[in-house]
Amino acid sequence: MRFDRIWLNARLATLARNAPGLGIVEHGAIAAKNGRIAFVGPAKDLPTGWDAAERTDCDGRWITPGLIDCHTHLVFGGDRAHEFELRLKGASYEEIARAGGGIVSTVKATRAASEDDLLASALPRLDHLLAEGCTTVEIKSGYGLDLDTEARMLRVARRLADKRPIGITTTFLGAHALPPDTNDNKDIYIDRVCREMLPAIARESLADAVDAFCEGIAFSPEQTARVFAAAKALGLRVKLHADQLSNLHGAKLAADFGALSADHLEYTDEEGAMAMAKAGTVAVLLPGAFYTLRETQIPPVPAFRKHGTPIALATDCNPGTSPLTSLLLTMNMGATLFRLTVEECLAGVTREAAHALGLIDEIGTLEPGKACDLAIWSIERPAELVYRLGFNPLHTRIWRGQ
Amino acid sequence: MRFDRIWLNARLATLARNAPGLGIVEHGAIAAKNGRIAFVGPAKDLPTGWDAAERTDCDGRWITPGLIDCHTHLVFGGDRAHEFELRLKGASYEEIARAGGGIVSTVKATRAASEDDLLASALPRLDHLLAEGCTTVEIKSGYGLDLDTEARMLRVARRLADKRPIGITTTFLGAHALPPDTNDNKDIYIDRVCREMLPAIARESLADAVDAFCEGIAFSPEQTARVFAAAKALGLRVKLHADQLSNLHGAKLAADFGALSADHLEYTDEEGAMAMAKAGTVAVLLPGAFYTLRETQIPPVPAFRKHGTPIALATDCNPGTSPLTSLLLTMNMGATLFRLTVEECLAGVTREAAHALGLIDEIGTLEPGKACDLAIWSIERPAELVYRLGFNPLHTRIWRGQ
Ligand SMILES: [Zn+2]
Ligand SMILES: [Zn+2]
Repeated sequence: MRFDRIWLNARLATLARNAPGLGIVEHGAIAAKNGRIAFVGPAKDLPTGWDAAERTDCDGRWITPGLIDCHTHLVFGGDRAHEFELRLKGASYEEIARAGGGIVSTVKATRAASEDDLLASALPRLDHLLAEGCTTVEIKSGYGLDLDTEARMLRVARRLADKRPIGITTTFLGAHALPPDTNDNKDIYIDRVCREMLPAIARESLADAVDAFCEGIAFSPEQTARVFAAAKALGLRVKLHADQLSNLHGAKLAADFGALSADHLEYTDEEGAMAMAKAGTVAVLLPGAFYTLRETQIPPVPAFRKHGTPIALATDCNPGTSPLTSLLLTMNMGATLFRLTVEECLAGVTREAAHALGLIDEIGTLEPGKACDLAIWSIERPAELVYRLGFNPLHTRIWRGQ
Repeated sequence: MRFDRIWLNARLATLARNAPGLGIVEHGAIAAKNGRIAFVGPAKDLPTGWDAAERTDCDGRWITPGLIDCHTHLVFGGDRAHEFELRLKGASYEEIARAGGGIVSTVKATRAASEDDLLASALPRLDHLLAEGCTTVEIKSGYGLDLDTEARMLRVARRLADKRPIGITTTFLGAHALPPDTNDNKDIYIDRVCREMLPAIARESLADAVDAFCEGIAFSPEQTARVFAAAKALGLRVKLHADQLSNLHGAKLAADFGALSADHLEYTDEEGAMAMAKAGTVAVLLPGAFYTLRETQIPPVPAFRKHGTPIALATDCNPGTSPLTSLLLTMNMGATLFRLTVEECLAGVTREAAHALGLIDEIGTLEPGKACDLAIWSIERPAELVYRLGFNPLHTRIWRGQ
């Protein structure tokens, strides 16, 4: 067997589906061929007579699957630093709105931005994720709220994959907020999302999935269900911003539609957790938004554990409620704020994040046949990746065997 | 006037003592001579006929004073990631103690470590601070709790300044915890600190200041006062871990001794805030520990503002309660968790941190005659340094004009 590349003298956290815990392998090796994992396991199990074009001695470093950020709003125009500053000075929401703040300001800036503008402003954020070993990122639209801008956001998201060695998946989030020019008529806007925007996005194959924001301040469960039905009719998988600020039973709704994931979930009840487990819908927890909004209601982690609801973690990178571009910090917040274990945190940004994107057969674990996406860490034990705050021990990032 | 080096086309946040807000200068320039700031201000005010050996065009980037971390426990042996992992799995404090956790484990590992071991393990932590524009770091002893190890920690801290271009100040924290071999007699240990350890440390000039931990689980106000009196008799400035978990009136005690700073302060009352303001004692807030311990009692920021108590921010980098090596994240936590303004956060890691170290005449602001320690940032406005989470926009770090 001749490999393209082999990493020797490594400790592996494979996160393999049938392995206990982190799937730890001491004295391990991983080999790549044509961008895929051709061997993974104890070095002593390497096939006799193996050879490799390139060999790397890992000096005992740890290798995990490349990290996956399965929920971001990475592409947007403008920034909200000034609004953050005003709010700390005690400005009210009205004053901030008058100063041009809030999601409306991001929509305005995004609509005004060209494809190249959006690409240029997203790249430093993407680069920070990459610098911490991230190899796949999901990116949502949702700051255009008109077909042109939503499509432009998704095109930019796809173009990021040409600019950097990383996997990008895209999600159409037309039902993110009511655009400013809709006379407060949410049903009319949802009509437009379902009848005009979604079919056009699907025609251009711009989105891998469809998302919505089901909440009092956004769209109702009925409106969400219409978006989901339209998406499914076009053959697109769905996911949902659910139960973040109140319990509208969004988790249950997502599960009923066989959603890939329901995200946030601070107010989800046990029935919702149960329905998600049954449907295989992943609970994507977003501690960066919880932290930034200073929320106190914690997602029902014990119910997820009890019913076997898979748990993922993501940055929710967005300019308003989670200006976060670190999956390492996300893991620390998952542990510190939500009391997830180290294993849950690490699985949450690898295996379960892959599940949340419907890509578990491709990425998310170190298993033969999968894409050879690796993060190699200068650490003594995997817990350090979760325990430390504001520290990046990444040694090397490998995407598709390179 | 011939400068060694000049930075042109910059926007400056000088944090100067008599300037309003951040002391912003548009179209600014800074020049260095012999490692000190020889000019700072609008480029149009440069002396006629100036020249410079080296010129840097900053392309409109922002320059702030180099950041200062005025409270760290950066030098220690071992790590506590495993303990963190066990605690998330629900282990009790007794179980963790039995598994070798707690501060005792750090004391044990630090005592067992050689100077070179301690140096090697501290460097990656220091490097992470440097990578975010930090130019001065305070480092405490306190994990030896015997003279040999305390002195070794302080020697290592001093040696770090030979390994990296950074200013290091050292603090003797013998009164950090009761060593395991003292039969629970705190007074006898405090005797040893005052009569043996402190004089020996002073003789070797190993410490720039003396600190103590005044708390129910550590030392009483009376014991703290004995340490302070001994320090002052040796001509050493003092500072205090005060009022973190309960109000023992540590802030007031620190002020009574003219302390440089009182640190933590979650339980400080208005009388304490007032006494500190009057004494010029800086309130050093440590949101990383607050976050990691999931505390809910917030330091009395409104009282500090009312009475004019200066406020600084620091990482408290330590293996048990704040494994944090990012001043940018510290600022975000100061704003998000403690509701400090952007100006307070930025002043807190520059000007006020310099005050907390007694070094305001040397560092902490961009003013003529001070050390030319700069952080140059790829940002559009200073608020971004506080607003963003897990992002590092540092462009260049300059220490002593280089
Ligand atoms: Zn989101
Ligand atoms: Zn401390």
